[in-house]
Amino acid sequence: MQITAAEIAQLINGVVDGDSSTIITAAGKIESASQTDISFLANPKYLNHIYDTKAGIVIVGKDVVFDKPVQSTIIRHPMPYYGFCVVLDTYFNPHQNRTGIDSTAIISESAVIGKNVFIGPYVVIEDGATIGDGAQLYAHVFVGSKASIGQKTIFYSGVKLYSDCHVGNSCIVHAGTAIGSDGFGFAPTPDGSYAKIPQIGNVIVEDSVEIGANCCLDRATMGSTIIRKGVKLDNLVQIAHNAEIGENTVIAGLSGVAGSTKVGKRCVIGAQVGIVGHITIADGTQIGGQSGIPKSITEPNQQFTGSPAMPLKDAFKSQVILRNLPNLEQRVRELERIIKELKQL
Amino acid sequence: MQITAAEIAQLINGVVDGDSSTIITAAGKIESASQTDISFLANPKYLNHIYDTKAGIVIVGKDVVFDKPVQSTIIRHPMPYYGFCVVLDTYFNPHQNRTGIDSTAIISESAVIGKNVFIGPYVVIEDGATIGDGAQLYAHVFVGSKASIGQKTIFYSGVKLYSDCHVGNSCIVHAGTAIGSDGFGFAPTPDGSYAKIPQIGNVIVEDSVEIGANCCLDRATMGSTIIRKGVKLDNLVQIAHNAEIGENTVIAGLSGVAGSTKVGKRCVIGAQVGIVGHITIADGTQIGGQSGIPKSITEPNQQFTGSPAMPLKDAFKSQVILRNLPNLEQRVRELERIIKELKQL
Amino acid sequence: MQITAAEIAQLINGVVDGDSSTIITAAGKIESASQTDISFLANPKYLNHIYDTKAGIVIVGKDVVFDKPVQSTIIRHPMPYYGFCVVLDTYFNPHQNRTGIDSTAIISESAVIGKNVFIGPYVVIEDGATIGDGAQLYAHVFVGSKASIGQKTIFYSGVKLYSDCHVGNSCIVHAGTAIGSDGFGFAPTPDGSYAKIPQIGNVIVEDSVEIGANCCLDRATMGSTIIRKGVKLDNLVQIAHNAEIGENTVIAGLSGVAGSTKVGKRCVIGAQVGIVGHITIADGTQIGGQSGIPKSITEPNQQFTGSPAMPLKDAFKSQVILRNLPNLEQRVRELERIIKELKQL
Repeated sequence: MQITAAEIAQLINGVVDGDSSTIITAAGKIESASQTDISFLANPKYLNHIYDTKAGIVIVGKDVVFDKPVQSTIIRHPMPYYGFCVVLDTYFNPHQNRTGIDSTAIISESAVIGKNVFIGPYVVIEDGATIGDGAQLYAHVFVGSKASIGQKTIFYSGVKLYSDCHVGNSCIVHAGTAIGSDGFGFAPTPDGSYAKIPQIGNVIVEDSVEIGANCCLDRATMGSTIIRKGVKLDNLVQIAHNAEIGENTVIAGLSGVAGSTKVGKRCVIGAQVGIVGHITIADGTQIGGQSGIPKSITEPNQQFTGSPAMPLKDAFKSQVILRNLPNLEQRVRELERIIKELKQL
Repeated sequence: MQITAAEIAQLINGVVDGDSSTIITAAGKIESASQTDISFLANPKYLNHIYDTKAGIVIVGKDVVFDKPVQSTIIRHPMPYYGFCVVLDTYFNPHQNRTGIDSTAIISESAVIGKNVFIGPYVVIEDGATIGDGAQLYAHVFVGSKASIGQKTIFYSGVKLYSDCHVGNSCIVHAGTAIGSDGFGFAPTPDGSYAKIPQIGNVIVEDSVEIGANCCLDRATMGSTIIRKGVKLDNLVQIAHNAEIGENTVIAGLSGVAGSTKVGKRCVIGAQVGIVGHITIADGTQIGGQSGIPKSITEPNQQFTGSPAMPLKDAFKSQVILRNLPNLEQRVRELERIIKELKQL
Repeated sequence: MQITAAEIAQLINGVVDGDSSTIITAAGKIESASQTDISFLANPKYLNHIYDTKAGIVIVGKDVVFDKPVQSTIIRHPMPYYGFCVVLDTYFNPHQNRTGIDSTAIISESAVIGKNVFIGPYVVIEDGATIGDGAQLYAHVFVGSKASIGQKTIFYSGVKLYSDCHVGNSCIVHAGTAIGSDGFGFAPTPDGSYAKIPQIGNVIVEDSVEIGANCCLDRATMGSTIIRKGVKLDNLVQIAHNAEIGENTVIAGLSGVAGSTKVGKRCVIGAQVGIVGHITIADGTQIGGQSGIPKSITEPNQQFTGSPAMPLKDAFKSQVILRNLPNLEQRVRELERIIKELKQL
């Protein structure tokens, strides 16, 4: 596919600075791009690359100033990474749209299947399930009874959606993720063993959610575990029963949110973070990797780190002193020596 | 289904306090229940809900005293949550019992299949495997050669049981869990690479164990990795080769137990905990979330937290001083100033 | 199978010390071996077991000296664990070599399939994929379009290899692992939601790599996520987009390497470790379990621990003082008391 700078500028509503007839056929990183690649420059830290890159076209910020000559054709855009991203999605997306129902898919007669769907080999869809128009289910997907999947949603190979759970429109769920497994709920019994608390609720995933590979979203004990619109979960994330993750919140890999906790909107949660159960996290909270959150965060838009977590500034201050602890101990020892001398005078 | 307070009291051996003909048809949380719901009150913290709830029936503790009028019919029980749990399991369990063998299941002729089993679509059962009476294997389950599954055990979709591994009676294993993958054992070779140490042992899971989704239980190098009776593992838990988890121990999500470690009975282990290899954890040990356990715990029934973990009380004490470290440093600086003055006198 | 000490010594190039006609039929741990077992002794800590073991043959270090009589036939070898490992692999490997293509496997006509492969039931191989000679794909494996798998590589049940991703020769990948899921890349949009950045790169796994169960290796945004020759990944490990893991590096369970980070050769990385994105880890770095690595490590062969990580020695020193913090606070209080007295003089 051959695409001109003019076509790209039109697509993303950008402005060409240079030869608008420049043609590219692929995309690449600025430091390794060739003449037939389009690339981008978003982080000013990498500005120097612009003078050396071989990329045919580079998308840059609206107001970036060059102090040396640049070989590439430039397209200016207020959000260059976002613009690049639209280009990739339009011309170079490796996940081609699939349609068709494989003859080996086992689909209950009572399931409702939309138009233009892709249902791959060995997919199993149980009684009363619903698959929206344009949904794509790769090989070995399992959809339990009365579960539903929205329009244009993609389930990669081996996703397991338990009965009665619902995933919205335009979602992406990666390989091996389990949605609707039982919440981890047990009641102690008189003999010291545990009785299972039946988990009679479900999971609701709203629209435009992306979920990584091998995640686990547990069904609620009663009611619903809820993943709100626009949430992005990385790989190996656990969401426990009755938790709720707010709109457009992002959670990185290997993190876990315990039962009944309500995470706000637009939060950014690092990797390997643990959030205890039955608390509330305010909108816009940012949490550093490996943090442990032991209690509710009520003020919005604050930053935390550490286990147990502290406000970011306090944590940095404590870390500096921590590193200097041997020095502090030395200073105390010196004081003890002087005092001893003073007392002997 | 319509159930009376009298029927429920009889089922759980409780005592009705109010109208024993009250009828419910569903179950709900006390704060959102409707008149046709049964609910429960176990944590005294939530006592206030009892005065506002619309629940038709509420199961409460034997000796709870109300100081305001209550609308709901009350059933008193020594362990109200456990009683509620029996009610859910008896009347409202969403996982209906399944039976029947799907025609697409591939079952070796040398496998032994019990009575009243459910074997779903695209299940694969290899040579010499054994499936107990009443077991339920959902779609895409894999059972390796000479592996066995006990009576009434449920494997949800996509569970993989490697060859020679054994799961007992009345177990539940959630989607995507792998039982019997090779232990992580390598020996350095003269050229700096690693040689694989063949893992010739297996995994034994005893009766009444529940294992969450996408867990990994590695087979032993030699001998067995053992999960004792009544153990409950949350999602994404790793149990390494030759580890042993004691009876009725509970391990929360994203935790790992390293090789050859022996965890005692009735332990309660939080989420994202790491326990190093080749140690012993005493019975009844309780470990806080995100803790790291670097050495054996010999005294039973103690509580630990932190990484590396300390006894709970010491950890809290250290955390308080940690938070006040800037203040301690300030006090030392003030002492240094005074000493300097004193010396100049 | 009956094997003599002489045969074993010849196989591993060791020296028999005792009766070279001793016969064994199985392998076992030194503390529980029977007379027909071969065992090994590598860690001097366990030397005492040599005097009590019932093992017919024990492989020990070249220069180990016994100060009491030993019953077993001894085979001396410079690396006894490695020698034992060769014995296990030669005689006792439970994963028998499989060949044959199951009639239920769905293989695209445009896929290229090598000789002597095993392709199990319900495996799906898409257009243009390549499977090397002697590769073994267990039940429910998925191989996406244009993906490739090298010679003698084993994929256990349910491994998912996305399109355009490549796994080399003599690799082992355990159940449920996903290779090639989309990197976690999103660009903020003007309305506060996130736009997906199409992940158009792939994953390349070189030769002789072992990957545990339920791992997640994300495809690159552009270019490749690379796992170099000889790498060993434990279970539940996440490798993010564009990361590179150097030759013969070992990473234990539940660890994560964030995007674009380059880990060196021969590193040893403990369990539950988190390494942030866009940094470099020097060759031979050793990282303790649960550590968090916030910035590049430039000096090779150093040891780190903690979150955020410090050099091992500093970390131990700080930990000792940390444990004694209440004591340090006490000393400062005592100084304050004395100073007060001195000033009153």
